[in-house]
Formats: sequence, C-alpha cells, structure tokens
Amino acid sequence: MKELKGACIIGQSGGPSSVINSSAYGVIRTALDCGAITAVYGAEHGIKGVLNDRLFDMSKEDPRELELLKYTPSSALGSCRYKIADPDVDDSDYRRILEIFKKYDIRYFFYNGGNDSMDTCNKISKYMMKVGYECRVMGVPKTIDNDLFGTDHCPGFASAAKYIATSCMEVYQDARVYDTGMVVIMEIMGRHAGWLTAAAALAAHAGSGPDLIYVPEVDFDMERFLADVKRVYEEKGNCMVAVSEGIHYADGSFVSEAKTSATDGFGHAQLGGLASMLADRVKRETGAKVRGIELSLLQRCGAHLASKTDYEEAFMAGKAAVENAVAGLTDKMVGFDCTREAGKYVCQTKLLNLTDVANVEKKLPLEWINEAHNGITQGFIDYCLPLIQGETEMVKENGLPRFARLKKVLASAD
Amino acid sequence: MKELKGACIIGQSGGPSSVINSSAYGVIRTALDCGAITAVYGAEHGIKGVLNDRLFDMSKEDPRELELLKYTPSSALGSCRYKIADPDVDDSDYRRILEIFKKYDIRYFFYNGGNDSMDTCNKISKYMMKVGYECRVMGVPKTIDNDLFGTDHCPGFASAAKYIATSCMEVYQDARVYDTGMVVIMEIMGRHAGWLTAAAALAAHAGSGPDLIYVPEVDFDMERFLADVKRVYEEKGNCMVAVSEGIHYADGSFVSEAKTSATDGFGHAQLGGLASMLADRVKRETGAKVRGIELSLLQRCGAHLASKTDYEEAFMAGKAAVENAVAGLTDKMVGFDCTREAGKYVCQTKLLNLTDVANVEKKLPLEWINEAHNGITQGFIDYCLPLIQGETEMVKENGLPRFARLKKVLASAD
Repeated sequence: MKELKGACIIGQSGGPSSVINSSAYGVIRTALDCGAITAVYGAEHGIKGVLNDRLFDMSKEDPRELELLKYTPSSALGSCRYKIADPDVDDSDYRRILEIFKKYDIRYFFYNGGNDSMDTCNKISKYMMKVGYECRVMGVPKTIDNDLFGTDHCPGFASAAKYIATSCMEVYQDARVYDTGMVVIMEIMGRHAGWLTAAAALAAHAGSGPDLIYVPEVDFDMERFLADVKRVYEEKGNCMVAVSEGIHYADGSFVSEAKTSATDGFGHAQLGGLASMLADRVKRETGAKVRGIELSLLQRCGAHLASKTDYEEAFMAGKAAVENAVAGLTDKMVGFDCTREAGKYVCQTKLLNLTDVANVEKKLPLEWINEAHNGITQGFIDYCLPLIQGETEMVKENGLPRFARLKKVLASAD
Repeated sequence: MKELKGACIIGQSGGPSSVINSSAYGVIRTALDCGAITAVYGAEHGIKGVLNDRLFDMSKEDPRELELLKYTPSSALGSCRYKIADPDVDDSDYRRILEIFKKYDIRYFFYNGGNDSMDTCNKISKYMMKVGYECRVMGVPKTIDNDLFGTDHCPGFASAAKYIATSCMEVYQDARVYDTGMVVIMEIMGRHAGWLTAAAALAAHAGSGPDLIYVPEVDFDMERFLADVKRVYEEKGNCMVAVSEGIHYADGSFVSEAKTSATDGFGHAQLGGLASMLADRVKRETGAKVRGIELSLLQRCGAHLASKTDYEEAFMAGKAAVENAVAGLTDKMVGFDCTREAGKYVCQTKLLNLTDVANVEKKLPLEWINEAHNGITQGFIDYCLPLIQGETEMVKENGLPRFARLKKVLASAD
C-alpha cells in the first residue's frame, strides 16, 4: 500500500458525551504526530464546518490544552444534527464537500459520532469512491446510547453508566432517611434502547439502587407498573424506580407523550417530563411521598465521573482510526472486540464496514431483561461492570474542572 | 470542672447532606475514644429514636465501616422532621426524653442538624437544666442551605456548592455544541436563602457557567427576567440561567406556585417544577430551544463531588462538640470562625449559644447580589472558593462508591 500524503479533517456529530473529546484527541494527537498527514483540521460543527469552509488548524493549539480534551465533556469542535441528502437525489452537499477536500488537499476524513453520523460518514465515503477522489474515511464511534451495531460497546456509554449508577446510589441513600416512606422515580436517557437505564442496575448490584427498572425494549403497562411500585412500597416502605425516557405502550406510543386526561380531563400536555408524570400517577395511587428526578443533560456531560476505561478506550478508538487509515484502510468504523473471561477484561479495536453500521440500532438483549419486565439480569452486570472501572484524572483548578480552551484558529488553504 | 461520666447520644435531624455523616463520625469516633463517655448511642431518626427507645450501640460497629461514614451521603442513622412542642404547653415529649436519658445514663446529647434541629436541641437543653438533670447538650451544625446564624458557613454547604458549580460547568459545555442556540435553566435548592444558587456563580467565574442568576433575597420580576434572557440569547446565541427554587414575586408568592393561566386558561397547577415552568415561558417568548434542569436531590447527596475541606470541617465540628462537652461546656452549637486574608483560608471552631442560633435564618448578604438583581458579585466568590477546595477520597469498590454499612445493633440498658 503506497503512502498517502495529505491533510485530514476530524468532525464531531450528534449528541455529545463525556469522552467524545478524548476520541477527537486520539485522532488529533496521532495525526499531528504522523508523517503522512500534512495538516490536521477540526471541522466546526461537524460536516457543517466542511460545507461552510470553517476548519480550525489544530497545529495552532497549545499541546497541553489539546491534552485536556481527554477530560473535557461535550463536543469541543462543535457538533451538528445535519441530515445529509441521498446523493442520488441531491448531490449538491457532496460536490461542495469534494470542493473543500480538494481546496485543503484532504486525504483523510475522520467522523466522530453515533448512528446518524455513521450514515453521513458512509455516504461521504461512497461518494468519494464513486467520483474517484482518493480519501480514506473512518468512523470513530461515540454514543452514550451504546446502540451502534457490531461493537461490544461504544465510547461514551460507560461514563454515562458510571454517572447514572453513582447518582442512583447516592439518591437511594438520601431517599430513605426518614421513617415516613418515599418513592423516587429516576428518568434516564434512551429513546429506543435501554442500555443507560439498565446501568441503574449496577447501583442495585452495589446494594444501593433501584427496586424496579423499565426499559423500552419491552412494552410498558401502566397498571402493572403501579402494582409493582405499590407492592415494593408496601413491603419495604420505600421504592426506587428507574425508567427509560423511551418507555412505550404496546401500541408504540411513548408514555412520556400521554396526555393527562386522567388528571384534568382537558388533555393538556404536561410541561414536566416522564418522571414527574409518573410521580404524579404514583402519588395519586399510593398516597406516598413521591419525587421524580430527570437526569437530563447531566448524565451526558458528567465528565467528573467519567470511567477511566472509557476515556482511554475513546482515545484508543481515535488513534486506531488514524493508524488504520494511514496503513491504507478506508470505509470503516472502529469498533471494540472484548473478552471478559475469568474476570479479566480485554478490549481491542477492530474495523467494521461503514455500510453495515450505518443506521442499524443495537438494543439491549432481551435475555438481560427479567421475566417480569421490571428488572435487569446478572448478564448485563457482568457485561457492564468492567467498562466503568477506573476514576478520572480530570485536571482541577481552584477545586473545579479545568476544561480545554481551544484557540480555534481558522485554517486557510495556501 | 469535675469530669462528668456517662453515656452519649448522637442524633441526626432535618434534610441530609453529603457530609452530615462525617460530623456524626466526628462525634462517634471522639466519643468512643474518650474516657469520660461510657457508651455511644446513635438515635434512629433523630429525636424520634430517643422517644421510641431506638438507640444503636455504636461500639458494636466495625471501626472501618464507621470511618466510611466520612464519604457516605445522607443520614446514616436516619433523620426526622419532628417538631417538638413548646415545653410550657406540652412537656410529655420532654418527660419521655428524660426517662430515656435516665434509663441509659445519658449525660451528653449531640444533635446534628439545621435551624429546626437547633430549636429542638435548645429546648431539650433548657428543659434538662430546668429539671436539674445534668446533661451537656451540643448542637453540631449541618445544612446545605448555609443559613445558620453566627457561623461563617455550615458543613454540607460547600459540597453542595461544589456539586452545583461542577454540574453547571459541564452542562454549560454541553448546552452550546450546536450552532442553533439554546437556553438552559438550572433549578437549584434554597427556599428562603440563595447561598446554593449563588454557587453557580463559581462556574461562571471559572469560565463555564450561568449568564444570569436569580436568588430569593430579592423580588423576582417575570418581565425583567424574560427581557434579561432575551438580551443574552440575542447577544450570545445561548443563555444559561440559574434560579433558586424559592424565587418569589414582590407580593411574596413563590414563582413555582404560579398557576399556568397564561398557558391554558384553566389554572391547573404544573406537575413539573419551577425549571420546566420557566422553560415553557422562555420558549413561548423567544422561540428558542429551552431546557429546564432541576438538580433536585442530586445536589444534596452528591458525595462523590464532596469538598475535602467540607468533610474535614464537618468531622472537626463533631469532634469539637464532644471535646467541649467533656471539658464542661453545654447549651452551645459549634460554629466556624474563618479568615481569608491574603488568599490564606483558616477555619477554627467556636461555640455559639443555642438560644441565639435556634430558628434564625442567615440570608445571602445583599451586597453580594448585583444591582440588576440577576447576578452574584466577587465578594461571594472570595467567600466561597476556599470552601470547595480539595477532592474527596471516597472509597470505591468495583468503580462505584463503597458506602458505610452499619449493623445498627439496638442498645439495651443494663
């Protein structure tokens, strides 16, 4: 394989995570140190930065600030939720991307994101092949949702899982201090897949977590849910529940979108989310003190609780993307192959075809959901525990996080 | 002062915090190691445990588990919100307490809590003096609200402040990743005092925090609030707001209790809290994408982000209570005297009269609120920064917190 000399672009796309910047740093650091890559550009707001010719010259950044990306949550380069067209229907975006690639002699394109982002990455890869422009394209996985196909897990998931489990453990302690009982309902992200909500089971496994867990892989039944809560509350005097934001009835409608007809007869949509809606239902049914807590964005950006395993693997994924591309591979996404034999966890990178990955959602296996559909089995614990090991080495200044401060110097093709 | 031999009780009362157990540990450890104190009892659910004769023998606990109390959030012994009667009106509780004190030869009573708890502590102290039963009574301060009179600050506040500031910093990063703007509203605890909400200013001071902060020490004006948010959003394309749950209109009514008449004309109370109500108003006024986040119980029990300064001072307060009581003092609450000269922070314990402390609320000084009533001044930053220094040494097991596991062996008087 001949060496391909040229510049590279790294872009970030979709919802951010606590460790997506560690992946970006893996790409940037490896690319800056690599002889074949002549310039390293960060695209502002993912593919939009390419379309708008807004590329930052990463060589202009202070290396120490770049290193802080490992502990900086959210997308440092800016993200986007831009849905790129089918090139057979409208190829104008692709022609523009090609123009920019030529302008900056881009020969490597790294795209850091989840399902939709891998679709973008795949389409760009196929277009460049079709028009015969030599550019090696690599997807770098990222999603707290953990729903990418073909990889053991996704960078970002474990840190969110660690945040969720730790927060559940702490709230569990707090929610049973009085001798008057209490029901707590924790609302956790995950529109279609229950991976994150299942992470609450880690807290229960550690002796301080939810009694009941509901995920979107199975249908939700309000009457069964209320009966479950009542039973636990009567038995224990307290009850903690974890629910996915994406739980839905058998007809597919989201529980969170249900109208409040039972409350006021006028069908006004709730302002509060699922947690407060369910809290209200439980309060009316049981008379208990109930509190709904939505983990909201906190679970996605809680880098202070990042798993060291996660941010190191995130870095490794970025590094592997560059190394494999420079070695001649293209049209792939980096994934993880893991073994957990005899309590020993080993994680290695592998490559998946972008075509296979794009737009496929990987759900929580049904065998990890208990028969009553209100709990998570040991299989998930064994799968997930190795991923949340190790504490962050986040740099602090004055007792608070010291996040990376990038200069973001715009590149000019010369 | 002659040595007073006898047993002691430690009770916890009111809303818990991340470090209240560190204070309890300060009392328990010091009392167990003290010759004058013949037995150390933990009251189940505060004063209720005394009334119900539910006392745990602390000498039966594994010392290593007791030490884990330093890093265990919430009230390990159980808390209560029991309002004790005025003894001149009804002294039946006091007679019962005296009976239990005699039964176990209780000569030291330590009560760990906030304003209401100091009232309980004060009443018991005065009653014992009145009936001539020799018992030394000491209040050990605790409240995330930081509103106890006569002390520089209260154990528990700083850890909540650190949690709030860190979470605001992380959410600030997350909430500006897209090139489409966003408004985020963070709802923070504090019904009457703005100390906790002011802590969000630490995040802004670190370059990643709220643009606007509203506290309950000054009246809230909805029109001015909406104009503030609009202005910042138009200028910066994003806006982050921190609000106390206790913000109120000029007539004293809580903003959180306002009906939704503007929304639906039927005046139905919102299920969601203040954050979602304000988010809805801002959404309708600006058309912006808005997210309301309520930190809820998380800020009160986030021990994984406890300030080392805070849990060490919490321990010191418990220790000082025992040492001073054994030395002959009674009818006091432990407080802190602090100096912050030339960047050097020094904290020492002092003693305050329980009579002076009980039921007095200390608010955020008005000079720390800016003139526009939408921000916090440097004075607060200088006050608060020393308190949040130092990271927790929380013990982890399998990547998650290892909280104290107490056996809670019931005591019997023999």
